[in-house]
Amino acid sequence: MSITTPKGFLAAATTAGIKPSGNPDMALVVNEGPEFTAAGVFTRNRVFAAPVKLSKQALADGQLKAILYNSGNANACNGERGYQDAVASVEAVAEQLGFASEDVAACSTGLIGEPMPMDKVLAGVGELTGSLGDNGSAAAEAIMTTDTVKKEVLVAGNGWQLAGMGKGVGMMAPSLATMLVCLTTDASLAQDVAQAALKKACDLTFNTLDIDGSTSTNDTVILMANGASEITPSVEEFEAAVLQACADLADQLQGDAEGVTKRVKITVQGTTTNEQALNAARTLGRDNLFKCAMFGSDPNWGRVLAAVGMADADMDPENISVYFNGEAVCEQTTGTPNARNVDLSGADIDVLVDLGTGGPGTAMVRTTDLSHEYVEINSAYSS
Amino acid sequence: MSITTPKGFLAAATTAGIKPSGNPDMALVVNEGPEFTAAGVFTRNRVFAAPVKLSKQALADGQLKAILYNSGNANACNGERGYQDAVASVEAVAEQLGFASEDVAACSTGLIGEPMPMDKVLAGVGELTGSLGDNGSAAAEAIMTTDTVKKEVLVAGNGWQLAGMGKGVGMMAPSLATMLVCLTTDASLAQDVAQAALKKACDLTFNTLDIDGSTSTNDTVILMANGASEITPSVEEFEAAVLQACADLADQLQGDAEGVTKRVKITVQGTTTNEQALNAARTLGRDNLFKCAMFGSDPNWGRVLAAVGMADADMDPENISVYFNGEAVCEQTTGTPNARNVDLSGADIDVLVDLGTGGPGTAMVRTTDLSHEYVEINSAYSS
Repeated sequence: MSITTPKGFLAAATTAGIKPSGNPDMALVVNEGPEFTAAGVFTRNRVFAAPVKLSKQALADGQLKAILYNSGNANACNGERGYQDAVASVEAVAEQLGFASEDVAACSTGLIGEPMPMDKVLAGVGELTGSLGDNGSAAAEAIMTTDTVKKEVLVAGNGWQLAGMGKGVGMMAPSLATMLVCLTTDASLAQDVAQAALKKACDLTFNTLDIDGSTSTNDTVILMANGASEITPSVEEFEAAVLQACADLADQLQGDAEGVTKRVKITVQGTTTNEQALNAARTLGRDNLFKCAMFGSDPNWGRVLAAVGMADADMDPENISVYFNGEAVCEQTTGTPNARNVDLSGADIDVLVDLGTGGPGTAMVRTTDLSHEYVEINSAYSS
Repeated sequence: MSITTPKGFLAAATTAGIKPSGNPDMALVVNEGPEFTAAGVFTRNRVFAAPVKLSKQALADGQLKAILYNSGNANACNGERGYQDAVASVEAVAEQLGFASEDVAACSTGLIGEPMPMDKVLAGVGELTGSLGDNGSAAAEAIMTTDTVKKEVLVAGNGWQLAGMGKGVGMMAPSLATMLVCLTTDASLAQDVAQAALKKACDLTFNTLDIDGSTSTNDTVILMANGASEITPSVEEFEAAVLQACADLADQLQGDAEGVTKRVKITVQGTTTNEQALNAARTLGRDNLFKCAMFGSDPNWGRVLAAVGMADADMDPENISVYFNGEAVCEQTTGTPNARNVDLSGADIDVLVDLGTGGPGTAMVRTTDLSHEYVEINSAYSS
């Protein structure tokens, strides 16, 4: 199964030589129609890459025929030259496939501020357009950067299918490399339905992943729908499928986050609003001391209190409760007798924080630990 | 030189057995008068420790005769028992020295959520009150937790002196252990002058130190002034001395931050207000990807842009400049030709970011790199 499993999608992958490692680094996904409905969700970073600018323009009419991917170079912070390089790349795709260039989007991931090696990129485009086929899995591999495994998903609808591929570690907070996701479906969809479903699913999945608080200049999630199944699912049915696909990919992304040894789910409740709960969950999920404690399987709940005490959320500072893996370690802002004995040695850690106001606000965020491996990977990326 | 160098201050230190390591873990600083002026600045964390609550009450009248310190246990999140333990500790000091208990403050640092071993603490108080003398340096040693060296400072006024000791890594963002600072001076001061000078100096020094974005439950800076020199410096003279002492201690704290291999100074300009500049500087100073790059001496300026692009500050996303150690690595949001060759191998790295709006806002923050050692120290603190 891959993004070319739904009817009417083709893909190709190649090694263009953008990555010094010599691993595959370019991919192309083509929608053969009959419909060309497309939806997208992009990074919120105000410093965004040239391909993000180009893809937003391409998606303005809600239609796409192809997406060109490359890894190894983010094409971010390259000024006007970067934008012209992105334009030249999609124009080459469009010309070779007989598309209008505004029907081609582009997604890049890799080092920021390095000009694109356009000779290699354009040669790669030639390879890609000449080798389109049922190569979705090869495409999923070609978009990897520090990912250790490719991420794919397939959801079966009633007579239609939805597939996806992804790389990176999370929309709100991807680590050094961007999160890119491509979803393909042969369902027939109105554009507004597709866009709404994608936005909703992103909010509930990728946007709850917060690995290190950093947000890439290149994050892009694009869905293409071609109606080749001749079936229009109900809005509910389609939204459920997109949510399922995104949740599955988000799990894969979290599990493969850089240097991760623990998957940590943080739930905050007992504050006034969901937004406040999210603030508190994010504050905790980004706290290095907490994340180091998780790496050490250390039930140091004091760090949970120290972190949430700084969050922009209503709380009763003398009535905060903390649970690790369902066991109360802190009640009324005071440790329970067995707090230090809770076993956090497993790979999954569940943290529940009740801020004690009795309010209805609640939110969930997923993060990881902070490990030696994270520092190692991220201390010598560009050199 | 130590906090007992100014006239009329005594100190004592002892090993009470609170720390499993067997290192000194209690200290007492006593002001012999004739004046007992005191000023304090405390943690902004809404979850704050019992000694912080007690010390705020003790300082309400602007007078103190003694401060009791312990390391190895933060006495935070211990509920009513924690507060009663803090009260009992200062009452023991007060009784043995013939003070009113509201003239004694308390500062604790160490593990959160562990009840104070009161038998050891009260025995320690007996040791301390019985061995007061010119022991300021021993006190500076006894308040250390993961500090590798004690931090002391002495500023000579015109006929008066100001001394200080500190531990930890920064007011806004101390790492696992709290920042505690004690300043002593034999100048004669009005309380409001002392308080204003301390607040101003903290804002410009400890509050610009941001090691890991975490803020302790116990941070406390207290200044005691006894007028023993019979000299009242001008407000300007005194403020300059307090600023100098705090800046010196802040440098020492930054240099000894957990696992630090680099001292990083971040200046942001070219945005609308100083507050916005501070937001951007903090966002960058807390960005793990940036901090890992600094650890690796990697001039990966793309991470600077990715980080500041998420900051709550006015910017021109296409006109951002970045300088490493005075060399332009990014202009108009685009890398300069020699950007990757800038030498960051030294221990001090200077980062200047211009957000490109032409606005007058500017701010400076100091941080450190994110190293293997940081993860190591912080992954097994409570266990």
